[in-house]
Amino acid sequence: MNAKMNTRQQIVDTAAILFHAHNYSDIGVARVCEEAGVSKGSFFHFFPTKRDLALAVVEQVNLNMAAGVIRDAFDPSIPPMERFHRFVDGFYQQSQTEKATYGNVLGCPFGNLILEQGARDEALRVKANGVMKSMALQLQAALADAVQASDLPASLDEEATAVAMLGYLEGLLLLAKSRNDPEIISRLGPAITSIQIHKDE
Amino acid sequence: MNAKMNTRQQIVDTAAILFHAHNYSDIGVARVCEEAGVSKGSFFHFFPTKRDLALAVVEQVNLNMAAGVIRDAFDPSIPPMERFHRFVDGFYQQSQTEKATYGNVLGCPFGNLILEQGARDEALRVKANGVMKSMALQLQAALADAVQASDLPASLDEEATAVAMLGYLEGLLLLAKSRNDPEIISRLGPAITSIQIHKDE
Repeated sequence: MNAKMNTRQQIVDTAAILFHAHNYSDIGVARVCEEAGVSKGSFFHFFPTKRDLALAVVEQVNLNMAAGVIRDAFDPSIPPMERFHRFVDGFYQQSQTEKATYGNVLGCPFGNLILEQGARDEALRVKANGVMKSMALQLQAALADAVQASDLPASLDEEATAVAMLGYLEGLLLLAKSRNDPEIISRLGPAITSIQIHKDE
Repeated sequence: MNAKMNTRQQIVDTAAILFHAHNYSDIGVARVCEEAGVSKGSFFHFFPTKRDLALAVVEQVNLNMAAGVIRDAFDPSIPPMERFHRFVDGFYQQSQTEKATYGNVLGCPFGNLILEQGARDEALRVKANGVMKSMALQLQAALADAVQASDLPASLDEEATAVAMLGYLEGLLLLAKSRNDPEIISRLGPAITSIQIHKDE
């Protein structure tokens, strides 16, 4: 049972890295099996289709992020306004690591999948969009705390502003990949807290 | 000569639609030839590789955008602050058309290409990044006019704010594709003018 779970995990972890470092279309099942050191028979036992693997990868990367950058940024003991800066900074550091490791800024794994597959694979779009929604909720909770602490006005539309902040982050990650330079995130990231949408707008 | 030019143009226009409606990896030369109604011999006469076609597509889409949404938004006779709203609104309308035509919001053609191919094809990344730079310059010129008109403070870092605004737009287009719903652009778009980065930051 443990060996089985390990094999599945090995496949998912390998695919997560490969999809992110290349893209989804380029990476076939054969390549994943080769790099994970598993047979195709074993692969298809766990994942009848490549899409099943992709859905599992989205879940795994979401878990990794929840235990990493999200947990670090949205720790309730941190002052609310500082959480947004930590959030952006976590992605800046990740982009720096990518550039150092692969020679390329890789962008957001979910954003990449959405722009590559969103118009052609409804199941992948919906799955990745679910992650976007949960990230927006983290931002929304921090905005509610900021309003509570009178750091932001009570007229703030916390839900809309949270989604706008997430959009801004995704845009910065796109620009960093476009320039192949993480520094744009560092330079423009702090302005995430300048984005405000109010209830009466 | 005209027939030759028409054939080339037919290939580029067809590929532009196909790449945008699907994605770059999915669309092979055979498919482009079939939909454009040209022979492979003719195709390879104009484009030795699929990447050569992709570079031509980026140029063509950039020209289309310059003659469309960019020209309409950045008309110097329009008050500077209104130009930003027209800019976002142009992409909102485009997303609505896509949804009505294809059933899917397709996202920014350049953003899509960058997130799909940016880490694996340096020539495509650099080409698409050139378009991003020229779009940022349009925003920067409008910001300079807004500062001149005292609509924005003189302390504004026009260059950084322009890139941040472009990032925000790209993020909204990503979210619209993620949700398959153009309305998020309409709801969050106006906040583009709340993004300000100042010289002393």
